[in-house]
Amino acid sequence: MKPLFKKIAIVGVGLIGGSLGLVCRQRGIAKSVLGWDRSRENLEEAVAAGAIDLAAANLPEAIREADLIVFATPVGTFEELAKEASAAARPDALFTDVGSVKGDLVASMEKILENRGYVPAHPIAGKERSGVASASAELFVGCKVILTPTERTDAKAKRRVGLLWERAGGVVIEMTPQEHDRVFAALSHLPHVVAYSLVYALLDPRLGIENRIRFSAGGLKDFTRIAASSPQMWRDICLKNGGEISRAIEVFEEVLARIKGAIARGDPALLTEIFSRAKEIRERL
Amino acid sequence: MKPLFKKIAIVGVGLIGGSLGLVCRQRGIAKSVLGWDRSRENLEEAVAAGAIDLAAANLPEAIREADLIVFATPVGTFEELAKEASAAARPDALFTDVGSVKGDLVASMEKILENRGYVPAHPIAGKERSGVASASAELFVGCKVILTPTERTDAKAKRRVGLLWERAGGVVIEMTPQEHDRVFAALSHLPHVVAYSLVYALLDPRLGIENRIRFSAGGLKDFTRIAASSPQMWRDICLKNGGEISRAIEVFEEVLARIKGAIARGDPALLTEIFSRAKEIRERL
Repeated sequence: MKPLFKKIAIVGVGLIGGSLGLVCRQRGIAKSVLGWDRSRENLEEAVAAGAIDLAAANLPEAIREADLIVFATPVGTFEELAKEASAAARPDALFTDVGSVKGDLVASMEKILENRGYVPAHPIAGKERSGVASASAELFVGCKVILTPTERTDAKAKRRVGLLWERAGGVVIEMTPQEHDRVFAALSHLPHVVAYSLVYALLDPRLGIENRIRFSAGGLKDFTRIAASSPQMWRDICLKNGGEISRAIEVFEEVLARIKGAIARGDPALLTEIFSRAKEIRERL
Repeated sequence: MKPLFKKIAIVGVGLIGGSLGLVCRQRGIAKSVLGWDRSRENLEEAVAAGAIDLAAANLPEAIREADLIVFATPVGTFEELAKEASAAARPDALFTDVGSVKGDLVASMEKILENRGYVPAHPIAGKERSGVASASAELFVGCKVILTPTERTDAKAKRRVGLLWERAGGVVIEMTPQEHDRVFAALSHLPHVVAYSLVYALLDPRLGIENRIRFSAGGLKDFTRIAASSPQMWRDICLKNGGEISRAIEVFEEVLARIKGAIARGDPALLTEIFSRAKEIRERL
């Protein structure tokens, strides 16, 4: 198949950026893949892993000749990177990203990138381990990739980015940026915040179990796997999607308070009702 | 090896009771295994699965000749069953259980069983699926089994029950009933309550994602696996270990409130600190 792009520049070569580089090179989606990362170490690892053809010394060098520029850093860095990139990129270069937050961030990116082509995207892929060492060309196979176009998004640009993700193995779906943030606040951001809170709480001295943590069973390990995700990435997601996440936390807090009340009152009926309903919902996931 | 018991009566043939029956029969831990269950259907399934030699028509019939009686029902039923069983059992019969709550429940059981031999136990084993259909003779291999003896527990009885669990593949550990309840409130009961709350919250109409639940990623599925556990079992655990669970919920709520505050204020440093510390703790699990 013909390459979709001549030069793809991947800004941030972690798990997602690295996996995208791998699949673009292995499936001939691009003629060449350039990478840049704030961390020199990540960048060298990405070259060694075959995720990029060439490591750029700085951002302008990475993107200067690129016809597609992909932001794959924590979402808190997008706006600054976009400013710098917009100044250095070719006039016809296309921009996209893999960020877990859309909403207001997309509006802000569109403002910064002005009339340049920009297609906001979010592949629903991840792993317990972050970093290019865990990257894989198969990471996106069968995974949903959400595009969140706006009225400013060019239709042809959207098709090209959609095609890239399809050739990477993904299933492309569209949502508005606002719907995206509402859905993933509940399905992804809230669970991460809850998992981090739970694991953090376990070592609170008031629980008195510091030396007993080895008694944790498999259930707890499954339950808290997502608490091993990148703290920087999740800090940025929390700050960039704060409104929706706060709303989701409040709904969750209310349910938990109802259970706490049922325990305090000794209300078996309410506990059975909530647990049974949750089991039913879980089985639909 | 010589059987440890002549007739074991298993009261409640679900996942744990059924697995115990299977391993006792397959490894010759008992000459015969009798079972009784409130549900006739479970009982027939247990016979078909080879978990018990014989299904008793009622509790007295199951235990009349048994030299070991195991309570493997939801913990809320233990006291009533112990009353009925105490009246029908042989004077030298030994009692034990597999309950996830000890503490006050052990004290209450000792009162009911008076001078009979009683060894409270809790195998830390479980699966996503409850019921005898998921039972396995290998369920206890390598799993920790907590015995929570008190000053009333007979040393010889404790050794025999410990030996049974070792022959079933478990690793026997002792704790006081109170320490057990504190440790498992944090490591097991709190995570279950949190998982049930989270899954229940997901379908709250205020989150507006009823039709988007299919976008959940693997992380959420891992995270909420334990919300598919038996509602009756967890209702009873919550009611019987309410004090410790409420304390654990409060500590968790405090951590979550700190995160919510950091999101509202836009405090990247606190988010990074909590998430990094949680990741570190998670990696020790």
